[in-house]
Amino acid sequence: MALHPAIAQFNASIGFDIELIDYDLTGSQAHAKMLAQTGIITADEGEQLVQGLEQIRQEYRAGRFTPGIDAEDVHFAVERRLTELVGDVGKKLHTARSRNDQVGTDTRLYLRDQIQQIRQGVRDFQAVLLDLATHHVTTLIPGYTHLQRAQPISLAHHLLAYFEMAQRDWLRLGEIYQRVNMSPLGSGALAGTTFPIDRHYTAHLLKFGSVYENSLDGVSDRDFAIEFLCASSLIMVHLSRLSEEVILWASQEFGFVTLKDSCATGSSIMPQKKNPDVPELVRGKTGRVFGHLQGMLVLMKGLPLAYNKDLQEDKEALFDTVKTTKACLEAMTILFREGLEFKTARLKAAVSEDFSNATDVADYLAAKGVPFREAYNLVGKVVKTSLAANKLLNDLTIDEWKALHPAFEDDIYAAIAPEQVVSARNSFGGTGFDQIRRALESAQHRLASF
Amino acid sequence: MALHPAIAQFNASIGFDIELIDYDLTGSQAHAKMLAQTGIITADEGEQLVQGLEQIRQEYRAGRFTPGIDAEDVHFAVERRLTELVGDVGKKLHTARSRNDQVGTDTRLYLRDQIQQIRQGVRDFQAVLLDLATHHVTTLIPGYTHLQRAQPISLAHHLLAYFEMAQRDWLRLGEIYQRVNMSPLGSGALAGTTFPIDRHYTAHLLKFGSVYENSLDGVSDRDFAIEFLCASSLIMVHLSRLSEEVILWASQEFGFVTLKDSCATGSSIMPQKKNPDVPELVRGKTGRVFGHLQGMLVLMKGLPLAYNKDLQEDKEALFDTVKTTKACLEAMTILFREGLEFKTARLKAAVSEDFSNATDVADYLAAKGVPFREAYNLVGKVVKTSLAANKLLNDLTIDEWKALHPAFEDDIYAAIAPEQVVSARNSFGGTGFDQIRRALESAQHRLASF
Amino acid sequence: MALHPAIAQFNASIGFDIELIDYDLTGSQAHAKMLAQTGIITADEGEQLVQGLEQIRQEYRAGRFTPGIDAEDVHFAVERRLTELVGDVGKKLHTARSRNDQVGTDTRLYLRDQIQQIRQGVRDFQAVLLDLATHHVTTLIPGYTHLQRAQPISLAHHLLAYFEMAQRDWLRLGEIYQRVNMSPLGSGALAGTTFPIDRHYTAHLLKFGSVYENSLDGVSDRDFAIEFLCASSLIMVHLSRLSEEVILWASQEFGFVTLKDSCATGSSIMPQKKNPDVPELVRGKTGRVFGHLQGMLVLMKGLPLAYNKDLQEDKEALFDTVKTTKACLEAMTILFREGLEFKTARLKAAVSEDFSNATDVADYLAAKGVPFREAYNLVGKVVKTSLAANKLLNDLTIDEWKALHPAFEDDIYAAIAPEQVVSARNSFGGTGFDQIRRALESAQHRLASF
Amino acid sequence: MALHPAIAQFNASIGFDIELIDYDLTGSQAHAKMLAQTGIITADEGEQLVQGLEQIRQEYRAGRFTPGIDAEDVHFAVERRLTELVGDVGKKLHTARSRNDQVGTDTRLYLRDQIQQIRQGVRDFQAVLLDLATHHVTTLIPGYTHLQRAQPISLAHHLLAYFEMAQRDWLRLGEIYQRVNMSPLGSGALAGTTFPIDRHYTAHLLKFGSVYENSLDGVSDRDFAIEFLCASSLIMVHLSRLSEEVILWASQEFGFVTLKDSCATGSSIMPQKKNPDVPELVRGKTGRVFGHLQGMLVLMKGLPLAYNKDLQEDKEALFDTVKTTKACLEAMTILFREGLEFKTARLKAAVSEDFSNATDVADYLAAKGVPFREAYNLVGKVVKTSLAANKLLNDLTIDEWKALHPAFEDDIYAAIAPEQVVSARNSFGGTGFDQIRRALESAQHRLASF
Repeated sequence: MALHPAIAQFNASIGFDIELIDYDLTGSQAHAKMLAQTGIITADEGEQLVQGLEQIRQEYRAGRFTPGIDAEDVHFAVERRLTELVGDVGKKLHTARSRNDQVGTDTRLYLRDQIQQIRQGVRDFQAVLLDLATHHVTTLIPGYTHLQRAQPISLAHHLLAYFEMAQRDWLRLGEIYQRVNMSPLGSGALAGTTFPIDRHYTAHLLKFGSVYENSLDGVSDRDFAIEFLCASSLIMVHLSRLSEEVILWASQEFGFVTLKDSCATGSSIMPQKKNPDVPELVRGKTGRVFGHLQGMLVLMKGLPLAYNKDLQEDKEALFDTVKTTKACLEAMTILFREGLEFKTARLKAAVSEDFSNATDVADYLAAKGVPFREAYNLVGKVVKTSLAANKLLNDLTIDEWKALHPAFEDDIYAAIAPEQVVSARNSFGGTGFDQIRRALESAQHRLASF
Repeated sequence: MALHPAIAQFNASIGFDIELIDYDLTGSQAHAKMLAQTGIITADEGEQLVQGLEQIRQEYRAGRFTPGIDAEDVHFAVERRLTELVGDVGKKLHTARSRNDQVGTDTRLYLRDQIQQIRQGVRDFQAVLLDLATHHVTTLIPGYTHLQRAQPISLAHHLLAYFEMAQRDWLRLGEIYQRVNMSPLGSGALAGTTFPIDRHYTAHLLKFGSVYENSLDGVSDRDFAIEFLCASSLIMVHLSRLSEEVILWASQEFGFVTLKDSCATGSSIMPQKKNPDVPELVRGKTGRVFGHLQGMLVLMKGLPLAYNKDLQEDKEALFDTVKTTKACLEAMTILFREGLEFKTARLKAAVSEDFSNATDVADYLAAKGVPFREAYNLVGKVVKTSLAANKLLNDLTIDEWKALHPAFEDDIYAAIAPEQVVSARNSFGGTGFDQIRRALESAQHRLASF
Repeated sequence: MALHPAIAQFNASIGFDIELIDYDLTGSQAHAKMLAQTGIITADEGEQLVQGLEQIRQEYRAGRFTPGIDAEDVHFAVERRLTELVGDVGKKLHTARSRNDQVGTDTRLYLRDQIQQIRQGVRDFQAVLLDLATHHVTTLIPGYTHLQRAQPISLAHHLLAYFEMAQRDWLRLGEIYQRVNMSPLGSGALAGTTFPIDRHYTAHLLKFGSVYENSLDGVSDRDFAIEFLCASSLIMVHLSRLSEEVILWASQEFGFVTLKDSCATGSSIMPQKKNPDVPELVRGKTGRVFGHLQGMLVLMKGLPLAYNKDLQEDKEALFDTVKTTKACLEAMTILFREGLEFKTARLKAAVSEDFSNATDVADYLAAKGVPFREAYNLVGKVVKTSLAANKLLNDLTIDEWKALHPAFEDDIYAAIAPEQVVSARNSFGGTGFDQIRRALESAQHRLASF
Repeated sequence: MALHPAIAQFNASIGFDIELIDYDLTGSQAHAKMLAQTGIITADEGEQLVQGLEQIRQEYRAGRFTPGIDAEDVHFAVERRLTELVGDVGKKLHTARSRNDQVGTDTRLYLRDQIQQIRQGVRDFQAVLLDLATHHVTTLIPGYTHLQRAQPISLAHHLLAYFEMAQRDWLRLGEIYQRVNMSPLGSGALAGTTFPIDRHYTAHLLKFGSVYENSLDGVSDRDFAIEFLCASSLIMVHLSRLSEEVILWASQEFGFVTLKDSCATGSSIMPQKKNPDVPELVRGKTGRVFGHLQGMLVLMKGLPLAYNKDLQEDKEALFDTVKTTKACLEAMTILFREGLEFKTARLKAAVSEDFSNATDVADYLAAKGVPFREAYNLVGKVVKTSLAANKLLNDLTIDEWKALHPAFEDDIYAAIAPEQVVSARNSFGGTGFDQIRRALESAQHRLASF
């Protein structure tokens, strides 16, 4: 009795795992070479298999190999076509191998490549942030806690915070890469094989860094995929935070950036209105990646050893996460490279229109020998009085200052100017300009040490 | 300056929202009729628009309307084609409407249909369970707690537990339907419109049950999608539980069912081995649906009013959940209709090979006047003794019984026979045969009252 | 051999399920009454049990009953104490009952109560929103899409959008209540019982709306908990959106609200700075509730029938969600009742400082007979010109207007005044003042029909 | 106006962050020493602060320091008590520091410790698995794919698969540790400080491996917590898989293990029934940890820089994950050390009662020169015939074998004996006994290189 058509459709993975075809061919070529090398097949047979697989690659790239639903999965589709091309020797390809270790090999080869591409995407994003930061060392922007203006900071400092997050993303992906770059090939269906295969040789041919120590683990491990999904989720956390900020900055209320037409859509009747589509979509896509991570964890929960068909469900989540993460990194890179402009005049005004320099008045007094607590309490009163009078600290006359405390002198105005306020926070990692210059160098250095 | 090509690609939704085209056309036709009805456009213009939209539907179905990436989204693609077909009047279609309420309308029309289809899928699944239960009233199967055999039960009772879960799924989808079946059309971009539209008329034409009371809510609400994803997650919970059981039952160790070739794949060298692909995949797909639910919740978290581009991300999760839930329901329905067979001889043996009738010995004594606690303690000892002697309770001779307690008589054998043990649990909702018959009738009745 | 102490600790649930004690006592009293009513125990025994259980309740409330870890769970702790109080008859309480249906009963009694309390919390929140809306019908506030100002709207309209979301929350909880309010009591360990119990009588005593039809389903169903967690997640979605808005409104950039000291913390040196702790925490707690929903779904995935110890893990997630949802509703209710004040002067200015009235210029011309497209294109040019001249539309002189198009007359100023712009969006559900008044009445009416 | 009592309660974290008190005291001591070292306070003041903090530690440990809800958080509680103890100098402790970097420091100190403890827990678990494996090299157990018996394997091989998973857990936690072990202290509220602090000195005192490069990042980064939650989720994935297997093995159907009374609960009337509570609870707790991971991701999504009150919500998820992961590791370690026994007779029977040696018959023929495909097809037929005759391969007489193919000789019986079947799968990482011995050595070696 044949498989029910609806069940055949339900079981089939060819609809998505065709994405792995290049890796499947490469993996099979390595397997064929090893079979020949170890004498399991003849050198000539090995050569025929390798050539046949290469021909399928050419056919696929030329759009002449398009397996349908009857193929069930990409591995079967390839094997079938191979046998058409090279005859019965094609059936020897699957010697000493199972679908289980084959699909594991393909997935790791795929993800290994993708991680390298995503790491490059992170690097490109960092380079754009760094370049922008270099141009905005002395551009001041309000620094926030609780979305309340707290202290003015250098815009470069703000951008470099995202550089640091991305740096962790880059490092993390590098670590995970080590666990992706392990060969399960040769694990067989679950228990290894009776053939005298050489797993280290196939691993060498495929440039894997190591081989799985245990065949049961080799066919059933998906840690590497979950780790990758977690790293991608963190990238999305960072991009979503920056997206939120761009959306705020682009609002009329903040007015800190202008979005350019290359990265924003508008309305013909309200030409001034620019929708921050890119950061909105990035923020929205965050949920998608978190969802894939959860889905994969759920998939693995409670699965007994070794291979279970449930594992087939790992691929679409992986593919979509790769696609989404790459696209979001690229879109944000473009946005920060050419899609927005900081409105420096507006920013300059912003850091001069509030009381975020109040702490510095207290520091001024303390430096003049006034006990800190006394200074602190005094400043609280000054701010309250100024607020009531609808004045900023900078608006107080020198007489008003002196009336508040005799220690105030003309240099108070310089001390509470935003530039000075920023400059003074010169502790390691702070926003002081010297620190920013140090941080730019450090960033440059780390970016170069790719 | 034009949109950066990578950004245009990033923003575009045509790749997936083409799935909504039928609903988009229907929604637009209703809008056009309303515009004519209220005099915002002429009757003739209304007629042209309705006809033009119908023609696009025909073109789409015939494969002659295939908008590309330059169309951005399905709504724009339709409007552009409409203007090609009917000329400038096509540009009037969007009068008193915005993309925001249009996409909300399309999504609800789509989901409304899909919920009806899924409810039918649930009904089909229930019918198969009920039919199978009807044939297995007196088939006994071990009942488990902690996956330890606890008491024998009727197989019908076991199957009907899943009927009840599915019944809740059916009811729940019906309730959610009320909140999906609400018209946002006429909410405008966010605040309503200055045109004298008639929202109740479009709602009537589109058979919506009600209209959104508040336009801001109308364009930004996605509760209905989340509720649906939650209902789908519950369906998957139920199917995953049943899947787990089928996988256990199909193992050599349990051996309770035989999988048929129409629903299982095997190996040519081990023809007896049948892989339970369907329940494994269903169990695996559970994570996917949970992931979509989480993704959508994340999407909505903290979004300010009203429309934000993030909301575009709702569709793929919705489409994939619909597709997955329908496919899983169908696959499990086929599996239980024709893909497995209960091995009744094995089941009969299973319920006779353990001590799950121990409680009934205590009940037997209690009925003969032995104080319950005394009876209970005695039985514990009997079981221990029997275990040590490698005997089941049924293997004890009448003399052995009497030696344990003089109240035992020949009828003890009947009292602890599995059929009797099951039959006696006749409390409402229990596994007793009378209860099963009552439950079958109740199920039949509820299934009929579609 | 005794249980390993670390394992005993690991298994114990008394640390958290003590929260159910009141419900456990009530459930046990109903069970005792039923046992007496059906003659399974004597009337006198029933009375002793009911009295003993009541005494434990008094002891617990007086702080004199505090079971420790050795009790394992609340059910055992109660039974043990009961036997101390009433002697051996206490051991009869568990006749015809199992831990599995008992814990299911307790959980439902608990959640039933909590849902009623949360529904009341939703009602209180709605009442505060409605009251505030009633006072702000003519207060205008910018309406946003993409966080870009799109059209001015009535503040009442904005607040009522949240009233509608809460209305769905209230309805949804009411529906779920029906599925929580079902009695599993009498399901036994899994298969019912041989005792002549009366499940409808205990359900009646405990005011359950119905009884579970199937005992396996009765002991293993946790749909009701998941549905509740989903409804709570939606409440949190709504509260997180409003929280985000309050945080924005309270920023210096928006400046739409002032937070009062009763609901915000500040700094002594910057007395003007008020941190919006409440909405920040509410937004933060959103993740917690989503997490509990996910956790419970994962818990249920793939569990075979019937009771499994995994189910013990349902309680802490449930308790914390109840506590969190209630606290967030209450905090937001207090915040909107007494913790913030809309800065109406700032809002009035806000709706007059941009081009969000551009559409209305086009409508003005269209109403004077200018073809819509012509009008539309013209307005786009006007806005561009004004932007360049750093003027708003309202700043144009009548001569400038007439130079743009002869159809403009003095009444253009009235037509584009924010009040008129809002007033004109009078479609059903729109922001027009007549609509707001209708909506307020509708809301009042629905709120009253508790 | 004072904070509303309900809001004060809502904001307070003292209820859970008291868990950090030890770390808070240690962190504050380092800060005080640095203040003295850099001359910001005098050496004498520094000494007083350090002593006062030490005294609070003693008070807390003795149960004499129990801050209530009025303390808001642990940091404030400590500072208040410090000022009671040492007078006004206590108020100098917070110089050049903010709550934001303080809480970040405490959390990292806490998690750093916990990660070390969890790594030790992983090591203990590995040691138990390895010890058990060492005793079961030649114990055979069915190996499964799709929960169908596929090939017999060594029980040691099975156990070592979990050793490998745990090895990855151990390595992963070690990598994450590097990113937890970074000092944010000195980041100030968000922008650094004007005081001449020495961040490297406090980092040195607290044994941090590095300091945050950017102060905004320092106060708002929670990557380290998410990474830890992901690593914990993977630990739970592994434990849940093993739990599922133990639950299966302990079922009557599998009967592969006996649970001992030290780790399982039973029933007095069915003394043979042992509930696998530990693995069930572990499996159940998996969802809880996944939920915390999701909750924390949701928390971080879209948060603008720098500190937001939402971040306060990170702690309970972290604490509960630490507690859960440690408890689950410990419980499983106890279970495998002393709580279960493999039933070797039953296992021996299990690997002899099916056709999982069919592949080896084909290999036998191939080795005798029969073309592989021919051999393969033949074996399929043999199995079918045997199944129909209700025989196993081992039951065929030598004549029956020879009738099937003349190449069969007496050595066929040895070739298909389970021990031989296992022994022959000697490819690297396979189940062959030589490989197992190699794997045990490798495991021993890695375990030793702590």
